[in-house]
Order: sequence, then C-alpha cells, then structure tokens
Amino acid sequence: MKTDIEIAQEVTLKPITEIVAPFGINFDDIELYGKYKAKLTAEKIKALENQSPGKLILVTAINPTPAGEGKSTITIGLADALSKIGKKTMIALREPSLGPVMGVKGGAAGGGYAQVLPMEDINLHFTGDMHAITTAHNALSALIDNHLHQGNEIGIDPRRIIWKRVVDLNDRALRQVTVGLGGPLNGVPREDGFDITVASEIMAILCLATDLNNLKERLADIVIGYRYDKTPVYVRDLKVEGALTLILKDALKPNLVQTIYGTPAFVHGGPFANIAHGCNSVLATTTALRLADYTVTEAGFGADLGAEKFLDIKTPNLPKSPDAIVVVATIRALKMNSGVAKDALSTENVSAVETGFANLARHVENMRKYGIPVVVAINEFVTDTPAEIATLKKLCAHIQVPVALASVWANGAEGGVELAKAVVSTIANQAPNYTRLYDDQDSIEEKISKVAREIYRADKVIFEKKAKNQIAQIVQNGWDKLPICMAKTQYSFSDDPSLLGAPTDFDITIRELVPKLGAGFIVALTGDVMTMPGLPKAPAALKMDVDVNGQALGLF
Amino acid sequence: MKTDIEIAQEVTLKPITEIVAPFGINFDDIELYGKYKAKLTAEKIKALENQSPGKLILVTAINPTPAGEGKSTITIGLADALSKIGKKTMIALREPSLGPVMGVKGGAAGGGYAQVLPMEDINLHFTGDMHAITTAHNALSALIDNHLHQGNEIGIDPRRIIWKRVVDLNDRALRQVTVGLGGPLNGVPREDGFDITVASEIMAILCLATDLNNLKERLADIVIGYRYDKTPVYVRDLKVEGALTLILKDALKPNLVQTIYGTPAFVHGGPFANIAHGCNSVLATTTALRLADYTVTEAGFGADLGAEKFLDIKTPNLPKSPDAIVVVATIRALKMNSGVAKDALSTENVSAVETGFANLARHVENMRKYGIPVVVAINEFVTDTPAEIATLKKLCAHIQVPVALASVWANGAEGGVELAKAVVSTIANQAPNYTRLYDDQDSIEEKISKVAREIYRADKVIFEKKAKNQIAQIVQNGWDKLPICMAKTQYSFSDDPSLLGAPTDFDITIRELVPKLGAGFIVALTGDVMTMPGLPKAPAALKMDVDVNGQALGLF
Repeated sequence: MKTDIEIAQEVTLKPITEIVAPFGINFDDIELYGKYKAKLTAEKIKALENQSPGKLILVTAINPTPAGEGKSTITIGLADALSKIGKKTMIALREPSLGPVMGVKGGAAGGGYAQVLPMEDINLHFTGDMHAITTAHNALSALIDNHLHQGNEIGIDPRRIIWKRVVDLNDRALRQVTVGLGGPLNGVPREDGFDITVASEIMAILCLATDLNNLKERLADIVIGYRYDKTPVYVRDLKVEGALTLILKDALKPNLVQTIYGTPAFVHGGPFANIAHGCNSVLATTTALRLADYTVTEAGFGADLGAEKFLDIKTPNLPKSPDAIVVVATIRALKMNSGVAKDALSTENVSAVETGFANLARHVENMRKYGIPVVVAINEFVTDTPAEIATLKKLCAHIQVPVALASVWANGAEGGVELAKAVVSTIANQAPNYTRLYDDQDSIEEKISKVAREIYRADKVIFEKKAKNQIAQIVQNGWDKLPICMAKTQYSFSDDPSLLGAPTDFDITIRELVPKLGAGFIVALTGDVMTMPGLPKAPAALKMDVDVNGQALGLF
Repeated sequence: MKTDIEIAQEVTLKPITEIVAPFGINFDDIELYGKYKAKLTAEKIKALENQSPGKLILVTAINPTPAGEGKSTITIGLADALSKIGKKTMIALREPSLGPVMGVKGGAAGGGYAQVLPMEDINLHFTGDMHAITTAHNALSALIDNHLHQGNEIGIDPRRIIWKRVVDLNDRALRQVTVGLGGPLNGVPREDGFDITVASEIMAILCLATDLNNLKERLADIVIGYRYDKTPVYVRDLKVEGALTLILKDALKPNLVQTIYGTPAFVHGGPFANIAHGCNSVLATTTALRLADYTVTEAGFGADLGAEKFLDIKTPNLPKSPDAIVVVATIRALKMNSGVAKDALSTENVSAVETGFANLARHVENMRKYGIPVVVAINEFVTDTPAEIATLKKLCAHIQVPVALASVWANGAEGGVELAKAVVSTIANQAPNYTRLYDDQDSIEEKISKVAREIYRADKVIFEKKAKNQIAQIVQNGWDKLPICMAKTQYSFSDDPSLLGAPTDFDITIRELVPKLGAGFIVALTGDVMTMPGLPKAPAALKMDVDVNGQALGLF
C-alpha cells in the first residue's frame, strides 16, 4: 500500500495559475510562492466584496477516537467529487502546524487519494504564515519584557503577565520556564512559558479578522496582563499593534493550493480547537464562497466542539451560514464509541455499531438545532462488513438523516460521488434556517449553560470559585458580551474523556475563564488544556529526510 | 530629505523574471515568492557547475564607528555603477535579521539610492530563510530535551549541553533561562539560553554548504554537548540530520531580488561576523560568479574581522578568490578613528583625517598581504570638505592605493561610476595572487597567532587557562585542523574597543575556544560576545505600521 507522500509525489501538479484561472483569478490577483502555492492579494479579496456567496458545506464529525474519522480526507474528497459531477467547488481548510508533523502525525493535508498538494510544503513552512504568527507573538513578548526592563512606565505587574511565548514545535521543556536570569543586563526575572504557535491568540485573531484594519484593531485589543492595580494592559497601551500588523500583513492573505484532482483549495490559518475556535480563516472561507458555487470547509474535533464554535463564533463573521452540515463517522469509530478496544475493531460487531450510533445520532440532533440540514458520511474502511454498514444505514434512516458511503481515501473523487450527490440533493430540497445557540447579550453563565445543556446534554454547570471570581472581573471590565469558546476534552460530550457514546447524568465543571479580547471571545476551561504538546519517544522527525534530488521523505 | 523606505516605495519594480532573464535565468529556473523575489532552483545551480567564474570584488571597510561607513550601500551602488558602464554585474549580499530591524536599525538593505528591493520584504520575512533556520535550530533543541526526557539513552550530561535555542528577535530576557520546570511531565530542568537566529551555527552552516548533501553532512557534524564521560555528542548520534536538512531544503536556495537600478542581487544568508564568518552564502556568491562578469560581495564589520574571515574561511569554499578588494571609508569615520567626538564630526578637521588615516592604511596593507589588489572607496557625506577630501586622496596616493569618491547614497548608479571605473581598471591591470594567511595544518595557537600578529598587529597572544584546556580537548578530539573564526570587538584592531586608529603595543587575550564542527571552524573568543541583543528604550517597532493599502511604514 502506498503512503500518502508516495501518492502525492506521483501526481503531476498543474501550475496554481491554471487551477485558479477558471474561478476568475488572474496572474495579477495572486502572489506566487513557487509554482504551486499562491496567496490571494488583498486587492482581489476587496474586489470580490459584492459577489454573492455560493453554498457552504461544513464538514464535522462524531467524537474523535484513536480509530480516526478522516474529516479532512472527507472534506477534500467531497470537494473533488463535487467538481467531478460538474459543480464549481472550492475547499477552505486549516493549515497544519509543524510541531505535530515532527512528533506523531507526520503530516496533515488529507490522506490517500484525497490530499491537498504539495503536501510536503503544506506540512513544512508552506507560505510562512505560522512563522509570521510566531514572530509577531514573540515580538510582543520581547516588547513586554523590554518595557519592564526600561522602567515599566505602564506599571505592568510581572507576576500577572498572561502573554506567554510561542514556538511552532512540540517542546515540553519550554512549557514552564524562568526568563530574565543572569543579572540586571538581562531584564526582569519572571516565570513564563511557551505554547505551540497554533495556540497563540494571534492565530485566532488572524482567523477571525475581516481585513488588515480589523486585524490591527483586534491586535490592539489583546490583553497581555495586568497592572499592579489589577487593571488590564492592552497591546494598544504598548503602542505596538502597528508593528505586529506589519509582521502579519502577508500572513493574512489566504493561501491557494490544489487537490490531487485539481480542485482549488484555500489552506489558511489553523487555531487550536480547544482554547480557540478551530476553523480556517474567515477571509479564506468568505473568499471561497464568493468565487465558487460550493465551498467545503471543516471544523476541528467533534461536532460538540468544532461545529458548535463554527456556528456560534465563526459564522457571525461570515457572509452566510452553512447550507448543509456533513457529519463524518466510521464504523470503526462508532464501535470504539461503544467501548470496543482498538485491537478488536477488525472483528464484525453489529451490536457495537448500534450502541456507538448514539454518539452520531446526538451530533446529528445537535446540528439540526442550528436549523441546518445534515448528511452523514461514512468514511469506508476495508474492515467494514456489509452487515455493519446495513445496520448503520438503517439507524440513519430511523432518524431520517441522509447517509452516504465515501471511499475517497482509496478511490479519490469517484469514491465521493455518492456523498456529493446526497449533499447537493439535500441542499436543493431543504432550505437552511440558521439559528445561533445563544445571544451575545446573554450572561456568561447563560451562554455556557446553553452550550452545556443543549449540545453536551449536561444536567447542570458547576462554576468553581476561581471561575466565579473571574466572571465578576470580566463583567467589571465590560467583556461579558463576547461569545464563549469552550475548552473541553474532544473525546466525550462530557468533560470526562472516558464517557464515550452519548453520556447522560453528568455535570460540566468550569474551572477557569480566559478573556481573549483580540480574538473576541472568552475561553471557558473545563479542565487542564495542553497548549504545548511533547514529542514521543521515537518522533516522526527520525524518519524525515531529503533524497539526492531534494525530494522530501518521511512525511506521511 | 526622503527616507530609505520613501525612496524605495517610489520605485516601480520590474518582475524579477525580467531582471534575471539577461543572465540566462528562465521562468523554470526560479521559484517565485511574489513577483519581485525568487529562489534559484537547485537544478539551475547544478547546471551552472561548469561555467567559468567572472571577476569577484570584495567590499570591506575600516573599523566601524558610530559615524557609519555605508558598506552595503557602496556594495550596491558599485554594482549599479558597473551595470551602468556596461558590465554584466550581480550582487551577493547578506540578508538582514528581523530582530535588529525592530530594535535600532529599522532596516538593512542599503540606503538612499543604493538599495535592494523590495526592502520591506527583505527586512521582514523575505523568503523565510531565517524562519527555517530558527525552526531547524529549535527542532534540534526540542529533540535534545526529548532525548533527556525519554530516558537519555546516549547519556547526555544536561549540564554540558552547548546547543542553546534561538529566536530572530532582540530579546534580552531570553539570554539566560531555566527550562523543563513544572514537574516530570515537563522534561528535565536545566539552564539554557536563547541566541539571536543569525548567531546559530546552522546559519553559518547554511552559508558555507556547497549543496544539499554537504548541508546534511555539516548538520550531522554539529556538536550539541557532551556525555557524562565528556565525549562529544554529535547531531548524527541523535539521527536527526535528515529532518533538519528537510526543514532547510528551501532555505539553502539563494534568493534573487533587484536594486533600484535593476541590477540583480542575491541576498542570502547572514551569519554573525564575530562568532561566525559574517558573509552571505557560498552558494549565492558561487552562482553569481558563474552568471555574471562582475560579482560584488561584502564581508561583515571591518576588514580585520570580515575580510580576514572571507579570505581565510569562505574563499577556500569558492571557485575563485577575489580579484579586487574595495575598502570603504568615510571622512567622518576616519575622524572618529582619530578620537574626534561624534558631535564634532561636521567641523572641518584635516589633521584628524590624517591621524585617522592610519586605520585605513593598515587595512589596505593587510588586504595586500593576501595578494589581492585594493581600491579605496570614500563614501561621501555632505559635511566632507574639499580640504579633507584632498588630504585623504594625497594620503592614499602616498601608499599607492587607487581611491575614488562615491556618492551612491545620494546619486545612485551615477554616483558610483568613478569607483566602478577605478575597480575595473585595477582588475584589468593587476592580476591577483591569492595567498591564505595560515594553513589549516598549522596548530590552533599558530593559526590564531598569525591572524593576531599579521592582521591585528598584536605583540603576542595570551591564552588563558580555560582556553589552553580547551585547545588540549580540541586536539584530543582531532578537531584542530579547522580554520579559526576570531570573535573580537569590531571597533579596534585590538581586543579593546577603545583603542582606535592603528594601535600598537598590545596583546590579544584568548579566553575561550568554541568548536563549531558543522560550520567547520573553531571560534576563538577574545572577550564576551553578545549573541542576543536587547531592544532600546524606544524600539523602532513603535514606529512601524501598515497603511490602509497594506504599504509598510516605519522601516528606514
């Protein structure tokens, strides 16, 4: 069986100029990065402003399991299939972070015959967006520490600086550090830590900004810490939002690449799906909508986290809400959701499919609460048996949700045609009626409770003392009318990763609230969130190499 | 008076494809980064291998002073003037580091009407080379700390890890840090520190590598620290040279840009001029030599440091040695070298020019020791008086060195014609006879002594106890047949920055030796070297911004 990189390297890519030309994008509308990658100019984005948007398809999934769901693969394959059946289609995806690529993942640009290319570049430096975010983030850190060192005119309390540093690597040794050591020439000693770049608030900002000016305003709004008198210190107090915007001006432009089948894809921005909203950039999705008849996009983790945030945080910034939501499931992952162990997944187990279906059914029901038609996509595996598939189809029929098999990993565009037709027909026959789950004017407690009760199905929400104090502080600062960004385990509807399927009779505990004024949301933490991954004992990096012709090896 | 960025933004750039076409570089030979920047493909570099090289002109300078010498400006202006008088000319320059751009400098791509463009991009992310180096460097750090955390099979002594982390920013608070804090999940606590990216050994390696394979070999040779038994640990022991090479594969390709007058310029690599050799990449210089009749390149700091290293470290890796050396001086800097204070520089002072000339004369004499013809370039300032200029010319005549005025900052290509003609005529009339100062087979002490006595004019070299022990260690490890990279103050021939002019009766003290096996040299430290700059009280970042059209502001 061929690896992803082997499949990718066998494809003869077309120049990106040829890929985007049918969408009305000319040579002067793009900035090339080599022959196969490009950024769309700000001028072109502006010129499209009055184009009416096409149809928007959001791809989400059941709760992730170690069996894998293949959400990106389905997103890409569905788009290729839509192209194949004659629909003018674009993709809007997140860009991968280098850290996990060097750790366990090895790559994150789809898989099999449903990939965005050149996968080597996308997985490594791509067009430099991550590096620009890292640089802007750490430039702010350096400017903060320089402010302390140069007399601390603003009166920043070094113990209450919440702006950490970042690096686009998995580096556990940087989670908690002490900086400013070595005497008065080296600044003010204080505790600090590094997050991975995708966890930077600047990543979330870049993904929600509507233009360069909005980017600058959002950067100015970042709270970096507190004064000795506990009042917040904003980036605008340091007067460096201009410099940060300058560092980010090219990163804000969406990147264009192609799939194996030549469907154009925006791959732009990739915020964490827990402490941030987990979707690609508003600018990329908006532009795709204005260029194509069908735009296929994706949200992070399962629908309880990713789709909820797409619909409650990102959608209000888009020109339109989704026309259909595709919930991806695999037979294997449903079986795991019923409690089957990973090494028993290849054995037929119809009753496990039936039990695990509860997870899928709840996600379908949740998505329907937003007033948007749902289609279920079964990402096929060779181990799926006819009886298991028949059972799943019957269960879907029972809750009246269209379901389609997709074998895009193995068969590319052709393998997604059944799904593409199901989605097109659903969109043609069911008009969406988007309703947001909560109102920004609701109190923080109400907003969190609505998500917890309506989506997670918790009995009640418990706010720990620290969280209560923070809510009081947030209200006092006038920040309570922002949407909520929930940080919860992706493995369960609850805040306990071991509660699989469709758990009931549980509470959600809110431990902490983190205002992200630049991103424009309040993060609600239900537990510890890992914002800096570590490397495994044998990192993927050990297999990476370059051959004599400069071809990448060891990405997969 | 217009600022550099105002001048730069008034220029209508030509597509880089048009700029390089007359040099036989076609669309398929480059990878575009926008319309005005490109990387030359590895294939094209390989295809040029048998082209015979043109003439090489090395631009260096007297010891730098706060008055400024304008070495990059003269390099660019001289090349523009050579183009103007009909010579097929290319430039090979270093690329700037973002850190100092955000600190005091504001920009580093020439000045006035002698600039490489687009200066905004060159000064910011450019084609991502610095980011790739930062990433490769810190990936190695993360892999080292992960090795410690996962059981430390190699037996690395955490107290003897010499591989620090890097960031491309001026950030003094990161000079000395403690990492791995917070308990067993966060790795092994140890002291660490961050250098600025240009101080990374990987930067030096990238600049000396002759191809991708040589890059990988050099990366494998890096010594990251020592085992508990004090034997060295190489990157190859960690088996990650493949991954590092993969991260650097695009950064190795030289970048092409243009001057205001359309002369093509390679801007590639920028290692520190103290703890590294301070010149642009071997690949860029070599390729320029094979494409152009005249290549103008530059070395860092004054000729005692930059040119010495160009001639003793870089030149052996080039297809040929320089045909002429241009030593840049200004009347103002000569006056400062005689002890005149900065605020008195605008007053005519002929005798100060006479006294300060000793510095220039010694640099000229030094360069002649390498068997290469020398031309002096006087970078004109409005405050220079006719009497001062006449004196300087007379003094140059006295030591029989051609001298030419250059007003390229104010007048662009036209302002460099006199200098261009002097250089062309010198090359036509004087054949170089390159002789390296020392032999790699000399002992470490001999190599250092030759530089100190012949170039610095020290009476003798004192090796401190620590240095002596390190030399013994280096000999024991078989590393003593490498060239020496001197780290010394750039402000004086001596190791005391206050000894201006042409000091005599001094000793050079070697405090420490640092083996850089990947770069392929042994750094000899004469004192503390700052490898992480700080930001000033009012950093240049405070003035940086982007206007509504996305144009950069505040770079200068």
